[in-house]
Amino acid sequence: MTPSTADSPTVVRADGRAPDQLRPISITRGWSKQAEGSALIEFGNTRVLCTASFTEGVPRWLKGEGRGWVTAEYAMLPRATNTRSDRESVKGRIGGRTHEISRLIGRSLRSIIDTQALGENTIVLDCDVLQADGGTRTAAITGAFVALAEAIRWAKEKGLVERGADPLVDTVSAVSVGIIDGVPMLDLPYVEDVRAETDMNVVVTGSGKFVEVQGTAEGAPFDRDELDSLLDLALLGTAQLADIQRETLAEALR
Amino acid sequence: MTPSTADSPTVVRADGRAPDQLRPISITRGWSKQAEGSALIEFGNTRVLCTASFTEGVPRWLKGEGRGWVTAEYAMLPRATNTRSDRESVKGRIGGRTHEISRLIGRSLRSIIDTQALGENTIVLDCDVLQADGGTRTAAITGAFVALAEAIRWAKEKGLVERGADPLVDTVSAVSVGIIDGVPMLDLPYVEDVRAETDMNVVVTGSGKFVEVQGTAEGAPFDRDELDSLLDLALLGTAQLADIQRETLAEALR
Amino acid sequence: MTPSTADSPTVVRADGRAPDQLRPISITRGWSKQAEGSALIEFGNTRVLCTASFTEGVPRWLKGEGRGWVTAEYAMLPRATNTRSDRESVKGRIGGRTHEISRLIGRSLRSIIDTQALGENTIVLDCDVLQADGGTRTAAITGAFVALAEAIRWAKEKGLVERGADPLVDTVSAVSVGIIDGVPMLDLPYVEDVRAETDMNVVVTGSGKFVEVQGTAEGAPFDRDELDSLLDLALLGTAQLADIQRETLAEALR
Amino acid sequence: MTPSTADSPTVVRADGRAPDQLRPISITRGWSKQAEGSALIEFGNTRVLCTASFTEGVPRWLKGEGRGWVTAEYAMLPRATNTRSDRESVKGRIGGRTHEISRLIGRSLRSIIDTQALGENTIVLDCDVLQADGGTRTAAITGAFVALAEAIRWAKEKGLVERGADPLVDTVSAVSVGIIDGVPMLDLPYVEDVRAETDMNVVVTGSGKFVEVQGTAEGAPFDRDELDSLLDLALLGTAQLADIQRETLAEALR
Amino acid sequence: MTPSTADSPTVVRADGRAPDQLRPISITRGWSKQAEGSALIEFGNTRVLCTASFTEGVPRWLKGEGRGWVTAEYAMLPRATNTRSDRESVKGRIGGRTHEISRLIGRSLRSIIDTQALGENTIVLDCDVLQADGGTRTAAITGAFVALAEAIRWAKEKGLVERGADPLVDTVSAVSVGIIDGVPMLDLPYVEDVRAETDMNVVVTGSGKFVEVQGTAEGAPFDRDELDSLLDLALLGTAQLADIQRETLAEALR
Amino acid sequence: MTPSTADSPTVVRADGRAPDQLRPISITRGWSKQAEGSALIEFGNTRVLCTASFTEGVPRWLKGEGRGWVTAEYAMLPRATNTRSDRESVKGRIGGRTHEISRLIGRSLRSIIDTQALGENTIVLDCDVLQADGGTRTAAITGAFVALAEAIRWAKEKGLVERGADPLVDTVSAVSVGIIDGVPMLDLPYVEDVRAETDMNVVVTGSGKFVEVQGTAEGAPFDRDELDSLLDLALLGTAQLADIQRETLAEALR
Repeated sequence: MTPSTADSPTVVRADGRAPDQLRPISITRGWSKQAEGSALIEFGNTRVLCTASFTEGVPRWLKGEGRGWVTAEYAMLPRATNTRSDRESVKGRIGGRTHEISRLIGRSLRSIIDTQALGENTIVLDCDVLQADGGTRTAAITGAFVALAEAIRWAKEKGLVERGADPLVDTVSAVSVGIIDGVPMLDLPYVEDVRAETDMNVVVTGSGKFVEVQGTAEGAPFDRDELDSLLDLALLGTAQLADIQRETLAEALR
Repeated sequence: MTPSTADSPTVVRADGRAPDQLRPISITRGWSKQAEGSALIEFGNTRVLCTASFTEGVPRWLKGEGRGWVTAEYAMLPRATNTRSDRESVKGRIGGRTHEISRLIGRSLRSIIDTQALGENTIVLDCDVLQADGGTRTAAITGAFVALAEAIRWAKEKGLVERGADPLVDTVSAVSVGIIDGVPMLDLPYVEDVRAETDMNVVVTGSGKFVEVQGTAEGAPFDRDELDSLLDLALLGTAQLADIQRETLAEALR
Repeated sequence: MTPSTADSPTVVRADGRAPDQLRPISITRGWSKQAEGSALIEFGNTRVLCTASFTEGVPRWLKGEGRGWVTAEYAMLPRATNTRSDRESVKGRIGGRTHEISRLIGRSLRSIIDTQALGENTIVLDCDVLQADGGTRTAAITGAFVALAEAIRWAKEKGLVERGADPLVDTVSAVSVGIIDGVPMLDLPYVEDVRAETDMNVVVTGSGKFVEVQGTAEGAPFDRDELDSLLDLALLGTAQLADIQRETLAEALR
Repeated sequence: MTPSTADSPTVVRADGRAPDQLRPISITRGWSKQAEGSALIEFGNTRVLCTASFTEGVPRWLKGEGRGWVTAEYAMLPRATNTRSDRESVKGRIGGRTHEISRLIGRSLRSIIDTQALGENTIVLDCDVLQADGGTRTAAITGAFVALAEAIRWAKEKGLVERGADPLVDTVSAVSVGIIDGVPMLDLPYVEDVRAETDMNVVVTGSGKFVEVQGTAEGAPFDRDELDSLLDLALLGTAQLADIQRETLAEALR
Repeated sequence: MTPSTADSPTVVRADGRAPDQLRPISITRGWSKQAEGSALIEFGNTRVLCTASFTEGVPRWLKGEGRGWVTAEYAMLPRATNTRSDRESVKGRIGGRTHEISRLIGRSLRSIIDTQALGENTIVLDCDVLQADGGTRTAAITGAFVALAEAIRWAKEKGLVERGADPLVDTVSAVSVGIIDGVPMLDLPYVEDVRAETDMNVVVTGSGKFVEVQGTAEGAPFDRDELDSLLDLALLGTAQLADIQRETLAEALR
Repeated sequence: MTPSTADSPTVVRADGRAPDQLRPISITRGWSKQAEGSALIEFGNTRVLCTASFTEGVPRWLKGEGRGWVTAEYAMLPRATNTRSDRESVKGRIGGRTHEISRLIGRSLRSIIDTQALGENTIVLDCDVLQADGGTRTAAITGAFVALAEAIRWAKEKGLVERGADPLVDTVSAVSVGIIDGVPMLDLPYVEDVRAETDMNVVVTGSGKFVEVQGTAEGAPFDRDELDSLLDLALLGTAQLADIQRETLAEALR
């Protein structure tokens, strides 16, 4: 039991969850037949298709260094949300939010990759939000990890990565946390996200270390205690996500 | 029995189908919780998510004419195919093929819409290919019709379209046909599509009339007899697709 | 005499033509002094400048295969039409219609080219509509063939293509046909094009085989009989265009 | 006789002209049936199609001031020149040279327009180079003036500009001059243009006043005497062009 | 004295600073004569020009709500850095990093603005990096606050914001912190930034509350203790920056 | 004393200058620590930061010719002017004016460069207007020359350009001149620039020869006498600018 829930024992959320409870999480491995690794991940009604594309060779700026490269692209289908948005391909340019999240996913995955062990290979993670209900970036990171792990297993089987090498140093998952009406809460759906005074996305490794901490005061600035409560909740949630990832990949990581 | 199969009784395709047989077809209505209408359609391994977004009002050039507007956008996820393609949003522009297919879908759907009965409302169909194995544009048209019908039913229930009005004049579906090693075949998967001498996409209404006939000699130009055999096959296939659509929508069209 | 004219013996069109009659056709070879091949083609008031640019070498993806490449780009001057359109260069992107027609012209010309005989050379056809009055894509294909033939003759004379080789397998031309007030008609000018219930562009080789059949129901879907009448008319018109091309190129193809 | 020719009496140019002689000039009024005014102008082998599009109303920033607007767009067909250039529409942006020339043409034409007399109307001049052999911008200005005059005559006849009003204050034409091997020369074709040490484009009204003087030292910087010789030549050439414009428009300006 | 320095008493940085020491900070108010508010801010060799542009009215989506809008754009001159980068205007699009930082600056400033008190007015902060040596985004936020305060003072004097109203709720500043060779350090110049295992940008109000916490594990993921040390340092640094801001604005905030 | 001032002895300008007087000129060498050469130049309130980036090698089209390349890019900060302009990077394309001025600066600098002596090296001049008050392009040329000279001196010291070689053939500077209320005036600030009937930018070498003469009749076309007066003034002003450049660079050119 986290300090935050101790402070607000009677809070029940619109969807019936306790403040420190994740939404129902589902990960379907191998949803795509075309990609080297793939996962359809659901955090409640948020649904993200993550594919991992493995190619031999690295971008020009990395050639000859004996190291691999992992990067990511995030996007949303135009009608993933409640009202339709114009396609970025039609607008002719990628928005700031899309860029920001793509970069976040890439950094998060690279944090648990041993690029030396990967060899001169590139893995691109595509995270396409098919349905959005808050927490799309954290679902994307969590699902992309599974697709990535699958692609690496595939590459080992094909002999494209040395069998002895272990490019995956750890697992990584992410969750959103926020303060609503003064109560710290875990894994915000859209209706909570828009009401949150403070909103934080936290990326954590399977061993419980921080990869990214991105906290934003949407309403009032927050103090040190609130920050600490949110970090507690995030560690709680990512630990559960790491368990689900491990179960999903049971064979893959053996 | 079509003339084409009569001419080649012993042909068996790589996937075990007869020349005049469709792949397994599956349509899942309401796959998206956000859109006014939606369908996930599968032609074998080809998988397209079609959503219909209904909005009141019409584009500026149509205002005040008492008529509605239906349009479509087609796109492919970067890893829908066997090798990854760059995103059109990243390239900053939409390719010719994408444009061409979006326009085809839009025209096909408008052919069975009574825009007067729709009133001054707009429906945008988004057809996003999640997995591609040939025939994505024909699957998109066939699935988009279902999403469109759902959105219109929704609009009637909401009173946004008059209950008495019937904007849907007919159903519409599409299928690809082609000549491979001299044999006309129905509903080509990718491996057949690349080998076809002639490739034709045919859009047909539920009452068996042509909306679009787009035949292309990829290899040798074709003669009138070959054209006739392909049209026969296309009518056969679209009639079956129309049945599946009707079953799927049973309640909706009542 | 085609079935269509038999059915409607008394129809006279706004410009005085019979339903199965082409507009006055004019092809001026060598209109441009700069290009390796060129033709200014006129279908009535439609006027398209076609130039062929021959360069040694092929695009990267074709290198070392011993085959050549033929491609095309179509565009319209901003005031080719009755009201001025914005330039695509100013808008910063090419519209779907432009893309679609460029691709159609390229495919049509490649259908009568033996790329092996062409050797590792590239020919780019630019078709710029100087004045538009319906049928610009069919005039472009018909004129581009002449420019292409000229460029190949030029290349043979320069020794860039082997004298013995014959990259031109056949001729190719195109014409539009459509149904207006129930009557199938050949070679539609703009005023007829906007009124047509069904509109079809047909590309045919000199030997009478189909390269492309692109039929669209602009108004009501069309049945098999109507389709057949339109194909008859298209074969009639393209046979006449092939004759005009042959006369124009008399020396070139000897 | 200009000082420059006096200094070099024996110079004969590659095309047989004297240093102070224009190339053969031809202006065909009404080349386009679609535009309100048009002219196909030729300076030797340079061939530019100029169309004037008249529309009622003005850009937003000029509304309600009782004045009209005249602007211009210049472009080159991809194979107007000796080697093919990529289309600016394909590259997705307009090059600096194109921008620069469009602005120059617009300023030149506005210099002889009484925008008050034009009323709240807009005229867009499109100058498309069909064939290029040096001096395309000066041919464009000279031809665009004719198209502009035609469009204004058309507008008066339609009653869109008051019959008593005279939006055309003067005529305007332009010519290039340059110093080659120390000799000032008039109206440079491409082969001379690339060799010129100094290159100057001069825009002059029918009454002999300067609108634009754009001199550039491509090779060695030039001194005051050279500048004076070039200006003399330019005045000589533009006076002849003004005569040709006046003859062409004889009826129009009456 | 922070825990971090206690842990590493003998660490001296390349530029001679102690781990918990800021670089020399300089803020020049009113550097631009054109803007309503401006500041040239220097964090060591990092030099950012911040201008505030005040305009009456708000973006369309905010009209009629009685609230104002504050937004920001960040950019770098091409040769602000040690090697020249291509201009984003030449590349035709804004990079992900630029987008991300612009959004961060905007959110940071909005956190201390009472938009009601601002009235229906818009202030755009432009932060252009003239010279870059690490910490450009934190310098930009700190300097932009000063430009913003100036613009608000200007608006009050002009009567565009009510004299009694106080749109500035607090001050805001930002600083970077990071762990290098295991030692937490404050305000990283470029040479330290590239070596940091963990890098964090922290935005804090004058009253010591967090607005943004953006921590990234560039190398190894970090634990809770490291995170705490970094937050301590950031609070120390931003408190000093707030003092400098207050002195700079002494008259303005009176 | 120039003819122009003789004609109008009593004219005093808004800022107290005589018609033939420059604004206060200031050049700060080495304003940027990052670039190989730099200068912050001020013509009154116009303030331009010029940096020179030296790189070994040349663009592809110049490779192997033993010659170097000098080019320039001009831009304005969004709030350099009295009202804010949108960034060209945000608009996604560079405007015509920006292109035009960048090209002018590049040509001006190349006119005094011996590219053979420069060797296969490239120097890019970035001229960013930090504050604009008329004459930004002429200030940019004048300041860019100083940055260029600095970069060449740097390259000689580094041995990247042969010590004996002298890539700088001459100095170059530029000034604007114009006719206001019939009086020719030197070095126009913004308030004069918008009122000028004729506006001319003149680029002159240290030895008094013309590199560029760009005169535009903004209002009424101008005659030969007016042109001569403006050229006199421009020679007067650029001679003074050349002196200031020489003093600034005293050591560099030794």
